[in-house]
Amino acid sequence: MTARIHLFDTTLRDGAQTTGVDFSLADKIAIAGHLDALGVDYVEGGYPGANPLDTELFREKRTQRARFTAFGMTKRAGRSAANDPGIAALLDAEADAICFVAKAWDYHVRVALEIEPEENLAAIRESVAAAIARGREAMVDCEHFFDGYKANPDYALACARAAYEAGARWVVLCDTNGGTLPSEVAAIVTRVSEVVPGDNLGIHAHDDCGCAVANSLAAIEAGARQVQGTLNGLGERCGNANLVTLIGTLALKPRFAERFATGVTPEALSRLTPVSRAIDELLNRQPNRHAPYVGASAFATKAGIHASAVLKDPKTYEHVEPERVGNLRRVLVSDQGGKSNLRAELERLGLDLGKDDPRLGRMLQVLKEKEALGYAYEGADASFYLLVKRVMGEVPDFFDVERYSVNVERRWNAKGELTTVAEAIVKVRVGDEVLISAAEGNGPVNALDVALRKDLGRYQEPIAGLELIDFKVRIFQGGTDAATRVLVEFRDGDGSRFTTVGVSPNIIDASFEALTDAIDYTLLKAGATA
Amino acid sequence: MTARIHLFDTTLRDGAQTTGVDFSLADKIAIAGHLDALGVDYVEGGYPGANPLDTELFREKRTQRARFTAFGMTKRAGRSAANDPGIAALLDAEADAICFVAKAWDYHVRVALEIEPEENLAAIRESVAAAIARGREAMVDCEHFFDGYKANPDYALACARAAYEAGARWVVLCDTNGGTLPSEVAAIVTRVSEVVPGDNLGIHAHDDCGCAVANSLAAIEAGARQVQGTLNGLGERCGNANLVTLIGTLALKPRFAERFATGVTPEALSRLTPVSRAIDELLNRQPNRHAPYVGASAFATKAGIHASAVLKDPKTYEHVEPERVGNLRRVLVSDQGGKSNLRAELERLGLDLGKDDPRLGRMLQVLKEKEALGYAYEGADASFYLLVKRVMGEVPDFFDVERYSVNVERRWNAKGELTTVAEAIVKVRVGDEVLISAAEGNGPVNALDVALRKDLGRYQEPIAGLELIDFKVRIFQGGTDAATRVLVEFRDGDGSRFTTVGVSPNIIDASFEALTDAIDYTLLKAGATA
Repeated sequence: MTARIHLFDTTLRDGAQTTGVDFSLADKIAIAGHLDALGVDYVEGGYPGANPLDTELFREKRTQRARFTAFGMTKRAGRSAANDPGIAALLDAEADAICFVAKAWDYHVRVALEIEPEENLAAIRESVAAAIARGREAMVDCEHFFDGYKANPDYALACARAAYEAGARWVVLCDTNGGTLPSEVAAIVTRVSEVVPGDNLGIHAHDDCGCAVANSLAAIEAGARQVQGTLNGLGERCGNANLVTLIGTLALKPRFAERFATGVTPEALSRLTPVSRAIDELLNRQPNRHAPYVGASAFATKAGIHASAVLKDPKTYEHVEPERVGNLRRVLVSDQGGKSNLRAELERLGLDLGKDDPRLGRMLQVLKEKEALGYAYEGADASFYLLVKRVMGEVPDFFDVERYSVNVERRWNAKGELTTVAEAIVKVRVGDEVLISAAEGNGPVNALDVALRKDLGRYQEPIAGLELIDFKVRIFQGGTDAATRVLVEFRDGDGSRFTTVGVSPNIIDASFEALTDAIDYTLLKAGATA
Repeated sequence: MTARIHLFDTTLRDGAQTTGVDFSLADKIAIAGHLDALGVDYVEGGYPGANPLDTELFREKRTQRARFTAFGMTKRAGRSAANDPGIAALLDAEADAICFVAKAWDYHVRVALEIEPEENLAAIRESVAAAIARGREAMVDCEHFFDGYKANPDYALACARAAYEAGARWVVLCDTNGGTLPSEVAAIVTRVSEVVPGDNLGIHAHDDCGCAVANSLAAIEAGARQVQGTLNGLGERCGNANLVTLIGTLALKPRFAERFATGVTPEALSRLTPVSRAIDELLNRQPNRHAPYVGASAFATKAGIHASAVLKDPKTYEHVEPERVGNLRRVLVSDQGGKSNLRAELERLGLDLGKDDPRLGRMLQVLKEKEALGYAYEGADASFYLLVKRVMGEVPDFFDVERYSVNVERRWNAKGELTTVAEAIVKVRVGDEVLISAAEGNGPVNALDVALRKDLGRYQEPIAGLELIDFKVRIFQGGTDAATRVLVEFRDGDGSRFTTVGVSPNIIDASFEALTDAIDYTLLKAGATA
């Protein structure tokens, strides 16, 4: 027999407090759709009545399966629920459930609300009753519950009891400041479950001690059956409990999967990684490569000894199978890797070399020399492919650059404005043909890129769709005299992306190397011949 | 009575497995220095003998206070420790301690090592004995301890016991795959402490379930007294336990601070945030804004109701005081909060402006405009100082750049070699004097830097000692057409360092802006007049 854990997502409400995040109405609707498809039980959309966007959002129910939930404060002291416009806005919202936030720390009741503790309890009771009377499922977020419990356990428990006895489906214990630690959560939830049954208890954790996920798990083990969190751990300060991580653990780790069930099907689970990335895409955030379960590096192995073990049996260094959450295994090529890493990478590229192929040793040798110079192939798949193919003697000498020059000049123009102009000249030999092209650009690399690709004679067609989309620079050993590594990302005509690398003391030279690699790669892939 | 917790940092060893991280020798030495100053007990430098960089690193002890630790495998089966070249390299390293890694899961012993379980125990014993005989402190990382314990508790315990009985100072329980959950760690460490005393037990956790910090805390509460982690949670896959977070919690959260002590003094603790940021700077990584304790948003409040409560009493929404870890409170929406932050920053620079000084509003306005363009002043102290002083009308117009041009050319030289030459011309006006200088360099920025500082007439003396020591580039919004932010670090004649920032779509322009800011800053500091 497994107990049902109810997943409550607050990305659209508490996640909206994230520094740098501003949801549009369309964003909120799109995210509600993702959450619904994932199998979350509750989607908290926002605070109708508090701002026009959230009021608009709650004109319609925005989920099919999940209970669409409105968030708001309990009624104000000194007026009845029926006469409180805040409560009216909540009751008028097209929501299945209403989550009231109520303070559970007597110090806050007095200092922040400036009301008597008993008035706060009455507000909880009356607000819950009003929601139920309107046919809504009611729940109460007990704000500052854990700090409040430490300061005055009786009052904190009285708040929880008031909510439960008034008929709230869920009494949610909030670690609002994120300062509570897992063993404290375990002890306090155990105590609270003597007053409110665990089947009616929820946990809402923040990550200020890096323990939000662990606190949520501790609460579940102590009896709580609702867990609140956000996609990718969005949220104020250090964020909320990461619901993506919790979904992975609840579904796949035996300690939880054997005892508990959620509404996330195996099929939805296998879309966890794309959903997590889609949210970052939507918000124009860089996905966290190291995120549990869904990060690009979550199943990536770099160390040589680990890599050879992973290739023998993935279970040796993987706690779950990446496919279960829609992620991928990666074995990285680096100076730490050995032949087995290299063979695995070659296989991924569709190149099957025997274990004793002498070219493996030469490839490793070249890799080592290059890496000693500062090349890094982990992020530069196309340059890695070229390196391998060059050792195999399979990269034709498509073109030679005889000369390039690039000039950047800042001066006053004829209109009396200070302007900066970048221009480049590139001279290449393609077979017997010598081609010279010039171009302007926003900067020296852009000018070189445009000039280089302006006229490559008979190779012009295959490279016509190539587009430079990102450019990264890392200087190592400090100073402009040191070596510069440049990574350039391209998109080709059919939309696929690849990255090349260049290294030189001179940033322009390093960039140019990455640009020419991109052309070689594209020509090789297109089957061009010298 | 507090028990001593020993902090073991493995940034330079396990952190080196992070995707995209490649430490140079200089990086490793610099990070060892940061860790030493922080008060960490052990700094694991790497694996001498496994690669030339680590062998070079261990030619000298790189810490003053912390025990400098070499990592390596236990002796191979089938040969004695005395005849194992891997062991010899470890013993020859200039290290205070040696940390051997040994498998503690019998399945791995058979499948990955392909030896008998008893041979593995013998390897542990003999390796520890060899280290002790050479006067080194010995410890053993029991790899896969928790998975091994679940599969075969007797064998896992036998490994721990073998290490302890051979004289290892620390038996470290590793959750190598990061799949163990806090309640499991608590139960297993409690059981192990019946075999090896807690005073000799360490914990090494990975973050694959988002529980690395919580697992470390659970192990400490169950008796372990050494905790391993990395700065900013660097490490393979999802990373290691974040030592920065653990240091904050151990020092500041009553549940731990009242029972345990570490070697981190309150003074060192107050540099936790700058140290965390410095590591990211060094590795050219974007600092995690949401990191517990040290993130730029860790004490930032956005919500209106929370913000006003924070202004009434910070304790209402802060679990610890940001100053204790060298971080700052930020109230995002409130203009009042902006001003008080700014005043705090100005105070740090020795500028005391009254609360109602109208220049504060103008400074905030300029800051906002600059930040919208992509400037970031957190790491560019000198440019921030100039911005403030410019608003105050206190930066003289030392010199004007009338024109610059920089040329980079690759061509065949007279000897038939392909060479790249960078040269720059800068024309400046200093008062009535027009000065034109040219220089060659390793790259365009170097050439511009040398040309610009070659002849500044009467300002030549104060800038003579200036030296460019680091140069960082970040492109945002992708593509060479996008904006480029350049940070340049300088050392002046008396050895102090400062950083300037420039932003432009053109990398050369952005660099040039940072170069001219550096000169303005140096002249201003030297008290030069126009």
